[in-house]
Amino acid sequence: MPIARKIKDVLGSQSMIRKMFEEGNRLKKEHGADKVFDFSLGNPDIEPPPAFHRVFLRLAKEDRKGSHAYMSNAGYPEVREALAVKASREQGATLDGSHIVMAAGAAGGLNVVFKSILDGGDEVIVPRPYFMEYRSYVGNHGGVLVEVDTRADFSLDLDAIKAALSPKTKAVLINSPHNPTGRVYPAADIEALGKLLAEQGSPYLISDEPYREISYDGIVVPPILASYDNSIVVSSYSKSLSLPGERIGYIAVGPKAQDREELLNALIYATRILGFVNAPALMQRIVAELTFARVDVDIYARRRDAFTRILDEAGIAYAKPEGAFYLFCRVPPRKVSVSSGVEGDDLAFVEFLKRRLILGVPGSGFGKPGWLRFAYCVDEKIIKASGTAFKKSMESW
Amino acid sequence: MPIARKIKDVLGSQSMIRKMFEEGNRLKKEHGADKVFDFSLGNPDIEPPPAFHRVFLRLAKEDRKGSHAYMSNAGYPEVREALAVKASREQGATLDGSHIVMAAGAAGGLNVVFKSILDGGDEVIVPRPYFMEYRSYVGNHGGVLVEVDTRADFSLDLDAIKAALSPKTKAVLINSPHNPTGRVYPAADIEALGKLLAEQGSPYLISDEPYREISYDGIVVPPILASYDNSIVVSSYSKSLSLPGERIGYIAVGPKAQDREELLNALIYATRILGFVNAPALMQRIVAELTFARVDVDIYARRRDAFTRILDEAGIAYAKPEGAFYLFCRVPPRKVSVSSGVEGDDLAFVEFLKRRLILGVPGSGFGKPGWLRFAYCVDEKIIKASGTAFKKSMESW
Repeated sequence: MPIARKIKDVLGSQSMIRKMFEEGNRLKKEHGADKVFDFSLGNPDIEPPPAFHRVFLRLAKEDRKGSHAYMSNAGYPEVREALAVKASREQGATLDGSHIVMAAGAAGGLNVVFKSILDGGDEVIVPRPYFMEYRSYVGNHGGVLVEVDTRADFSLDLDAIKAALSPKTKAVLINSPHNPTGRVYPAADIEALGKLLAEQGSPYLISDEPYREISYDGIVVPPILASYDNSIVVSSYSKSLSLPGERIGYIAVGPKAQDREELLNALIYATRILGFVNAPALMQRIVAELTFARVDVDIYARRRDAFTRILDEAGIAYAKPEGAFYLFCRVPPRKVSVSSGVEGDDLAFVEFLKRRLILGVPGSGFGKPGWLRFAYCVDEKIIKASGTAFKKSMESW
Repeated sequence: MPIARKIKDVLGSQSMIRKMFEEGNRLKKEHGADKVFDFSLGNPDIEPPPAFHRVFLRLAKEDRKGSHAYMSNAGYPEVREALAVKASREQGATLDGSHIVMAAGAAGGLNVVFKSILDGGDEVIVPRPYFMEYRSYVGNHGGVLVEVDTRADFSLDLDAIKAALSPKTKAVLINSPHNPTGRVYPAADIEALGKLLAEQGSPYLISDEPYREISYDGIVVPPILASYDNSIVVSSYSKSLSLPGERIGYIAVGPKAQDREELLNALIYATRILGFVNAPALMQRIVAELTFARVDVDIYARRRDAFTRILDEAGIAYAKPEGAFYLFCRVPPRKVSVSSGVEGDDLAFVEFLKRRLILGVPGSGFGKPGWLRFAYCVDEKIIKASGTAFKKSMESW
């Protein structure tokens, strides 16, 4: 009996990317892990903050009766109350525990949201480039992802969004700080977007913001719920507490969202039937005590600075990140002419760098050919050591 | 903007069951939790075994670098190897780590399996009664659940399964030990089912077996993978280690399954795109050290015996459970004649008992009207204390 046709098709088209990851592992085995400059994965290497370890150890020592049992599908009431305090402060809105649904990370939360709001053929608008998994998250639940262009600096293009809005539009999905560009949408843009959506049938605004607490140069990520009633915020502790493997995050629904009660019931129901059932119990109780803790963002800031110096010296242009931990770079023009190969071909440049033991991800994987992404959630030493390899590589590109 | 129509419809039809749960909570508030005999939920109250606490505390003390980071979507290689040893022993087959995909409990695992194998309109056959969530798990991914009758003792009716098989059949889903009947399908039935499926186009046999380690009277749950090549086992530690809130389980694919590599790739891909990403990291590492630990099943056995004595005395007939922790009871004939109400009406009987502070779940919720389910994963004292209430209730039914 074969697997699903639709999965078979996707597995086929994915094999190129998977092959690249496998190649990376092969290269590390062949040359030694310290010789390969792997900037391909957004896997935070910074350890969770000391407060996490303290709470974790205390809960393990106590290990109270019933603490690994089922709870409400929405999560522990006291955890939801604690996160409502956090979300209220960040979002400039007054939330209580009933507005929060705990989720298995932002990826789990987004699937729960799309399951709750999408019927077959409903459209979700997303600015391009975008995190490639969005296409699957929307498609899983019968929706259609509609890509719209951003402006040259990767900020929101409201005209493009307006042009893409249709009676089928169920939601607009934004991500700020942004993967892969590092862009933080300013308050004025969020407010203008809210105004536009309110005039155009009030689709949901879904804000995927696992990087909210990772921003630089004093930039504050503006609130979403304060700017538009029909908003849903999806967040996680994968980046702010470096807990991606533990799958813990949450969904916050705007207190003024239309049919809010029904939406919350749908989110709770979707959490159950999609098989999440509830966010992991222990991690719920840990993050409730750490609502305002976060990893040391200065570490990422220093890496960003080290990495941008290297790119500057190598002559590779990039969007200067305001948050998250990615550098989105333009494929530089070839100095060495080649018979085959397309100008600005990100696949060719990524392949070229890989042969020089520098690993990145082609922009094509984010809907933006001609660009590529480096993740700097790796040790500063590795970043600095890559300088020579970048410089040498560019001499023969 | 309204929620999804298809979710809105389901939320509407679900409100009766939700209202019952809410009623239960209201009753406990009104009468005191110890005065309400709540047998409605399959939420294990037995604590995880001492070995769990030891490993949990040790891992919290060590809390090694990188231990909360992402790992492969399939799970840690060493955890998969450890579970392959367990699965090999239970399933009478030779598995290695590559045959195992870690899952967020059996509910998560089943969604991953159905996402991997179902195209729109594909059918999944399930013997009735069945765990009500199966309908959602199959429907989430475009499949259609096809119910077939079981024999009078709730054992598999192979003729009914044979009659339901069609070119659209993608899988047969079984659950043993069984919720809600407590039935354990004997080896001969599993072998005969395997033989039937091999002759009829070899659809997948999916075995949902979170209760495998909870059986009574020396009954051993027979292997699945040994009896049919195209088998997929989905299991969890929710019951065997009493960890339902932590969402940890696994999928084991038969080593001789057709297109096994492709199926495993599909399961890993589905784990990612459904937003599970990976099973929770810490719990993976804990269960790898506890592959053969389990809660004290004798506690459940004593409760079963106490509960069946009470039902015998009250004159309520039931299927004697061979495993799991449920008593599936026939709605007794009314002694007191009523103008309205249908003979054998499980909704009426559940409502009647609820007014006497005994909570169960109507068989209609499992596709089997005229029956009801009591869960005995509650303290033996509560079970014993319910005897009088059962007896008194039956006098006025």
